[in-house]
Amino acid sequence: MRILLIGAHGTLGQAVAAELGQRHEIITAGRNSGTLRVNLADMASVEALYDAAGPLDAVVSAAGNVHFAPLADFRPEHYRVGLDDKLMGQVNLVLAGQRRLNDGGSFTLTGGVLADEPIVAGSGASMVNAALEGFARAAAIELPRGLRINVVSPGVLVESMPVYAPFFRGFEPVPAARAALAFSKSVEGAHSGQVYRVK
Amino acid sequence: MRILLIGAHGTLGQAVAAELGQRHEIITAGRNSGTLRVNLADMASVEALYDAAGPLDAVVSAAGNVHFAPLADFRPEHYRVGLDDKLMGQVNLVLAGQRRLNDGGSFTLTGGVLADEPIVAGSGASMVNAALEGFARAAAIELPRGLRINVVSPGVLVESMPVYAPFFRGFEPVPAARAALAFSKSVEGAHSGQVYRVK
Repeated sequence: MRILLIGAHGTLGQAVAAELGQRHEIITAGRNSGTLRVNLADMASVEALYDAAGPLDAVVSAAGNVHFAPLADFRPEHYRVGLDDKLMGQVNLVLAGQRRLNDGGSFTLTGGVLADEPIVAGSGASMVNAALEGFARAAAIELPRGLRINVVSPGVLVESMPVYAPFFRGFEPVPAARAALAFSKSVEGAHSGQVYRVK
Repeated sequence: MRILLIGAHGTLGQAVAAELGQRHEIITAGRNSGTLRVNLADMASVEALYDAAGPLDAVVSAAGNVHFAPLADFRPEHYRVGLDDKLMGQVNLVLAGQRRLNDGGSFTLTGGVLADEPIVAGSGASMVNAALEGFARAAAIELPRGLRINVVSPGVLVESMPVYAPFFRGFEPVPAARAALAFSKSVEGAHSGQVYRVK
């Protein structure tokens, strides 16, 4: 397969590239790194990304920022960070890609454990990750030509614990290489509309 | 209790007013009707609503618009309708209200069945309803002074079937009066961070 991987140089993206790169051609993309550059929040940039990528059998997104702050300090514009970037950025990949992917291709988006298990200061991430799951369930029943869509919802990564540990006390960290298996399940399997929770 | 009810003149809002009005003082609000007027998408308008409403023990929202369209026709700005209105409108009520509600007060927001069971053309609603659930789970663990938050997720209403039936074939419609009981459970109970699915 030819697989477009966005966020390829992040912790999760590198693990996904290592897993899928064993068997497939990976075209890397990202905001500031990768073979192709893209601003997912800008639909024109997403369309240009697809123009540059050529024919694709799968799109994998391991990209997306959200704002973290105590609920008492959260303002509407702070939620907008995650809604514009992690949510609509990944949705834009699907909107543009539904007309472009090869028949039977797949979209695999990244959500996260905070959809189910909130932490203090994480209401923006909980909102956005849950929204991605709802979107994917709905998009799955409308995608044409056998296209599929799934969400991978990983727990906090082992590799991120040096920074995130104080916020995720008691959460069992997931090695990025384990989370990457769920992306393989989505891309190389036949499910659609699923949320793969990697805990 | 003194309860602020937004969307009081909608189908669901009227049923909630009938249920809670038997035992509590209801202050009605809405975009175009009700004792108080508010544009939930505008935080200044939400703050003015609270100024006008006075002390409150509960805020109930039965308000919010989303865009419906086939996935092939959906554009980013169509998702923005629901994200700005049904999602952030209701979130704005919580952000402003967390400093204003009486101790032990509650927020009850309205999601919907499309979070779990998508329909064709409903990806915007599925996204927004799921986002509301994620947000409420997260906000519940951070609200101060014993404040609570829940989401009611009703099925398609019996009263809405003359218009919505073609889109909801096979869904068992819920009388608005039954959905209103879930709002009573949220306001008059002690749960927080729950999603009440009324099917």
